[in-house]
Order: sequence, then structure tokens, then C-alpha cells
Amino acid sequence: MRQSQLFTKTRKEAPSDEVAKNAQLLIRAGYIHKEMAGVYSFLPLGLRVMNKVIGIIREEMNAIGGQELHLTALQDPRIWEATGRWDDAAVDNWFKTKVKVGGEVGLAFTHEEPITRLATNHIRSYKDLPFSAYQFQTKFRNESRAKSGILRGREFLMKDLYSFSRDQKEHKRFYERVIGAYKKIFARAGIGEQTFVTFASGGSFSKFSHEFQTLSVSGEDTIHICEKCRVAVNDEIIKEQNACPDCGNKNLTQEKAVEVGNVFTLGMRFAQALGLSYLDEKGEKKFVEMGSYGIGPGRLMGVVVELLADEKGIVWPTSIAPFAVHLIVLPSEDAAVGESADALYEKLCKAGVEVLYDDRDLRPGEKFADSDLIGIPTRIVVSEKTHAGGKFEVKDRKSGKVEMLSESNLLSVLKTL
Amino acid sequence: MRQSQLFTKTRKEAPSDEVAKNAQLLIRAGYIHKEMAGVYSFLPLGLRVMNKVIGIIREEMNAIGGQELHLTALQDPRIWEATGRWDDAAVDNWFKTKVKVGGEVGLAFTHEEPITRLATNHIRSYKDLPFSAYQFQTKFRNESRAKSGILRGREFLMKDLYSFSRDQKEHKRFYERVIGAYKKIFARAGIGEQTFVTFASGGSFSKFSHEFQTLSVSGEDTIHICEKCRVAVNDEIIKEQNACPDCGNKNLTQEKAVEVGNVFTLGMRFAQALGLSYLDEKGEKKFVEMGSYGIGPGRLMGVVVELLADEKGIVWPTSIAPFAVHLIVLPSEDAAVGESADALYEKLCKAGVEVLYDDRDLRPGEKFADSDLIGIPTRIVVSEKTHAGGKFEVKDRKSGKVEMLSESNLLSVLKTL
Repeated sequence: MRQSQLFTKTRKEAPSDEVAKNAQLLIRAGYIHKEMAGVYSFLPLGLRVMNKVIGIIREEMNAIGGQELHLTALQDPRIWEATGRWDDAAVDNWFKTKVKVGGEVGLAFTHEEPITRLATNHIRSYKDLPFSAYQFQTKFRNESRAKSGILRGREFLMKDLYSFSRDQKEHKRFYERVIGAYKKIFARAGIGEQTFVTFASGGSFSKFSHEFQTLSVSGEDTIHICEKCRVAVNDEIIKEQNACPDCGNKNLTQEKAVEVGNVFTLGMRFAQALGLSYLDEKGEKKFVEMGSYGIGPGRLMGVVVELLADEKGIVWPTSIAPFAVHLIVLPSEDAAVGESADALYEKLCKAGVEVLYDDRDLRPGEKFADSDLIGIPTRIVVSEKTHAGGKFEVKDRKSGKVEMLSESNLLSVLKTL
Repeated sequence: MRQSQLFTKTRKEAPSDEVAKNAQLLIRAGYIHKEMAGVYSFLPLGLRVMNKVIGIIREEMNAIGGQELHLTALQDPRIWEATGRWDDAAVDNWFKTKVKVGGEVGLAFTHEEPITRLATNHIRSYKDLPFSAYQFQTKFRNESRAKSGILRGREFLMKDLYSFSRDQKEHKRFYERVIGAYKKIFARAGIGEQTFVTFASGGSFSKFSHEFQTLSVSGEDTIHICEKCRVAVNDEIIKEQNACPDCGNKNLTQEKAVEVGNVFTLGMRFAQALGLSYLDEKGEKKFVEMGSYGIGPGRLMGVVVELLADEKGIVWPTSIAPFAVHLIVLPSEDAAVGESADALYEKLCKAGVEVLYDDRDLRPGEKFADSDLIGIPTRIVVSEKTHAGGKFEVKDRKSGKVEMLSESNLLSVLKTL
């Protein structure tokens, strides 16, 4: 895309009321727009990153057999009353609204209830199980605090996966597959090294649930890492047992972290409350064992920004960058310089490389500052100097390493990305 | 996808409270689920169709330079107060909800206000214009009637495009490009023949706006078609001028229709109310001329169902079908029949053909009835008979035409789809 056509502009300062680093950088670089506290719109660059994150998660959900669907935001009180979660005394972050023709509806903060009721229309026999279904859907949470940018909002996108199994053993097998899929997702998104499977309280149905926690100085959570096992325990668990649940190691390292995903055993709680049962091989009625598994793609994006940014701006991993290449042409009296940049842009597009082409009429310093702020992994500069030398200047955003490459070398390097 | 893995099942009867033909068929075939009146979830098959529709619209929006973004559902009252649209007396279909920390927010029924305010952060000069931006985003409308299935819901997906131009002439040029893009979209979705550009009331800023109306016996609107110009006028306009605005023809044909899209000139109303101005070439401050352009992908999907379905079920055009091919294997004692179907399934998948493979252990009649109901364009049957003859039975869902094709002929036919 030609940057002269991109309607968003960078800005030198973040809004004065924005305290979160992720939001400050993302707003300054033109990725997001703050509508209200905890409510952010995604601008063209931001939506591109979001779609990359969604694409990675979708591939890994499909790989474990998840079937994608799309539930609604508006929620029928009846199913939430059946599980005891409609009352504001039970759930303190509902948004509720009145229907003109009478009655009240809620805005979904999660989707266990509707997907359980939905499943009752399709599940009869043991032959219909197991299955799992997931969605990317907006959640609404009436949070009292909303100062963490896109890490914790009142409205945010969530990937939520739900599993339906015949028994605990079948459930446990799928649960472990989700943990494997989540590890792949965080590794592909560039934060695998800093992300720990973390033991958390399991609720009524299992000893533990699991969180995925990513180290971050701005994290709201504290985790206790077992370096030997590369797992962690959260603050709840450390009070009960001051040791790694895997190896018993008591020498744990305390760190601040952000929860980027969770996997949870639901047992038969929702199935019993909403009548989701099946007939087993003997014709006996059994309730379905469920699990739920969440990742917030926006939060993941925000964590990546917080973790990898440097003093100049955002540093995207290639896998979720809005573009692979930021091509910059510097102003010149010599028309051949611009023509050479135009030609390279066309060639890169034809080769399937995603390019943001800074063809704007701006000073070099402004272009470089914008490029550092936006954080596209590879920068290519075309100038009088590079044009005279017959090569292109290629700079890696993360390492700062600069190379001079011929066009053919450049194209072969970019094809490996 | 193997149908034995698809968690949704077809059903013989639609819910008794469902009166709309589109919803009856889509629920019976397992495309959608009714959460409440006017609120539908999209199941795996339905989401596949929705994504095809979205894909077509996105391509045509990108082709005219639209930049995709994603605005929020929660709305800040201040910007709606500025345009006079917050008051329930002015807009009677708001859903509003209270924020725990104080204040009220709305659920967006459209997005002119937020995108106008957003643009004020990025537009300074005539050089920043024109541009257009669009999104696929959920709209919430507190409708008093919700009996039309996915044609008119309380929660539904909308593609809304907004244009920002320097003057009326520039605006008008873009407006005409959108009309061209919309014609392509409806043609590609298989309802081009039945869809008419329809003159409607223009509001304060232009003599006419334009609707796209598709003929449908269940339509809520009445249009008056000029067969000569292939345009129509709506009921409002016919009262003012009983003739085709293009050619003056008074011999118009009255038909029931459903509005599937609209294009609207907004003038400077929103820009003035929210301070969206720019400096022109002479340094003079001007307000931006805006337009808004909507298509509901879900409504489009529902219209296609209503229009093209037959007595056996849904008939999808190839462009938006959930799968291109419904491969059905009939039960047989001879294992070679199943193996031949399995092998064909693998080959089709490898060739990039989207296949729903009915590998379920059901009687032929049930499989054929399901297949007719689901409405995938091409059905391939593998049975003892076809296996013995060394060919496959290929049936066109729409025409009912049956051919016997060898594997190589079959693959070459399917590649042309």
C-alpha cells in the first residue's frame, strides 16, 4: 500500500489521558483509536495486525478440529438464570440493556451458556461427540478499571473455544491438545520464550486450570517460575503449595506477567444446568463434559507491543506485522530515484510481499522516525546514494543491522520471510 | 470437511415461532441458530457462507480504494449529542446501557459519528483527501418488529463504507463508483438480475439517494420498475413524480422488494457538527463532504435463500455456497465403494475444491434430502452402481441435471468453477 493513500497519520504525542504503553505507541503510530476509556477502534494498520493474529489462532484451532462459528452479543437472560449467572450479585461486570418490546438482554462477557443451549439442538448420541467449536467474537465487560490500553478493555475481541466430551478422560485428552496448540500460537506470535504455562486454581472440577502468562513489567499478575520445568504457578496456587507442581522445586522466581490465554475444565456444570445430555452406547443418559479456552487477540497484540518495543517505537515480529516491508523513497531532484522505488514497489507486490511504500513528500528524518514508530520488520531505503550504487539499503528494525543488497539478492531474501 | 465431523444436524421442522422462509430453511439446514427474536448465531455452515459474502464485498470495496478498519460497538454519547442523534426522540431504536463507573453508552446502530470524530485526528489539509474507509461490524437496532429472520434483526452484521471528499463534485464521482461496485457485488452474489438501482428520497443534501432493491415476494418495500432503464423508484418517490427519473417513462411495474444496499449523500452535516474540516489550496477552512454506503451481508444471504430456494431446500450460487461440492457415498457391503469415495475426497481437497463429504452411516434417502436442503451447487454420488460403471454421478442442485463423469472429466469440470 502507498502510504500517501493511508488516511491515518502518526503523531508525536499520545493522548494525555493514556497511561498504558501499548496504547500510547499504538495510538501514536496510527494502529488504534481511543473511543472512550477501555474502548478502542482498530484502524487499517491495526486491523491488519489483528487479522494476522486471528489467522494464526484460526489455523491452530482448525488443526485440533475446532469448528468455527459466530455467536451473538445479545444474550437471553433465561439461559443465564439457569446457570445462576444473570444476577449482578453473581457476575459484577454485565452490561444489560432493555428491549423496546419488553424485557432485558445482556451483552455477552463470555459464551458458555449460549453454546451449551445451542449444542442441545444437535447432540443426541455418543456418536455426536466429541466436538469442539470456537469463534472470534466481541466481549463486553463492565470493568471498573480500564487503564491498560488494549490489554483490558470494556469491549474487546476474544477467541473462545468450547469442547464437548463424553467423559473426563476424553475431555482431558482434548484439554492437553489445546495446551499444545496455545504453545504454538504464542511461539508463532513471537512471545513463546517469554510465555509460561501457569498452574491456576481449577475451580470445582479439577485441581488446576492453566493460564498462559507472558512476562511483562506492566503485568497485573505475579507468577512464580520453575526454571527447570519452564512452568509457573500463579499467586493463588503459591499460597497453597510453595513449590512447582511438576517437580516439587521450591526455588521459584517471581515475575510480573500478563495472562494471554487460559484453559479451563468446566465439568458438567453448564450441561446439567441447560440439559445438554447424550445417550451412551448402553442407551443411558449422560451429561456432557465441557471445557472452555480463551485467547484475546487484541490483548496478545498489546502484549507483543509492550514486550518488544524499544525507545524508538514498536517492533513487530514478522508473523503479525501489518506489512513485511516498509519501502521508503527519499526526496530527490533526480526523477530516476523515485522511478526506481516505484519499480521496486511493483516488483515486490507482484512477488507477493506485503509492502507499505512511503511515497510521501516528507523529509528523510520524518520518514525514518515514522518507520521506527510503526515497527515494520524490514525497511528498504531508496535514495540518490543507493541509486548511484545500484543497490538498496536494507535495515532490520529489531537489530538495526544494515545491508546493501542488489535487487536480485533482496528479492531472494524477502521470499524466505 | 467430513460431514460426520460437522457438529450441526439438519432438522425436519423449523421452530414453530419462525415465520420467515429464510430463517426456516437456514435453521433446518443447520446454518443459523435463533437465540431470540431477531438475534441469530451463525453455525459453521452459515459462517462459511457469510465469509464468502464478506469476501466478495471486501474485494469490491478494496477495488474502489476503501480502507478497512473496525470501529467499536460501544458509543460515546457526546458525539451523538453533537449531531442531535442521542435523544430517543430523534432515534427510536437505540440500545443503551449503563457503565458501572458512571454514565451511559449506546450500542452502535450506525457509525457516522465515530468515524467522523476519528477522521478529525487525521485530516488537516486538502492533501489528506479524498479517502474512504469501511468495516464489517455488528449493528444493534432495538426494532419493535423482528419477524423477518436474518433480513431484519436486532443484531446483525453490516458493511458500512464512509467517504470523505473535498467538494460535492469529488463526492459525486465516488458515489457513482460505489454504485458500480454494488452492482458487481450483487451480480457476483447471484442476484444481479433481480436487483434494481432504486431512486429514494435524498434527505437534505441531494435530490435522490439510491437503494438497491431485490425482487422478493416477502419484501417489505414496494418498488416501481422502469423496464427500459432497468432502474426503479421507491414508494416515497412515486408519490412525488409518477415516472422514471431517468427517461420519464410513466409505465412502471410495481413489485415487492427487499432493500439489499443503500448509498447516501451526507453533505457536511456530520463534518460541521463534529468539526471535521480541512485547509484547501488557498489555506481556507472547508468542511468535508461525506457519504455513507451500506450492505448487510446477512441480509444479502437471507435474500439469496428466499429468492433461489425451491421446494426441496436452499439453492446456493457457487460464489457464496459453503462448499462447491457435496460428495455423498451411499452405504455398501463392498468396502471398495467407500474407499473410492475416500480417494475422490482426498483428490478434490488436494485440487483445492471445497468439499463437504457425507461419509455418515445413513440411508440414501436421508442423505439426498439433507443434500437438497443444504443446497450445495454440485452433488457427486458414489455408490455400488457408479463404482461398477467406473464413473461418478454428478448432479446440479439448481437444474437437477445429472451426468455420469469419469474422474478426469470430473476434476477438469470442477476446476472451471
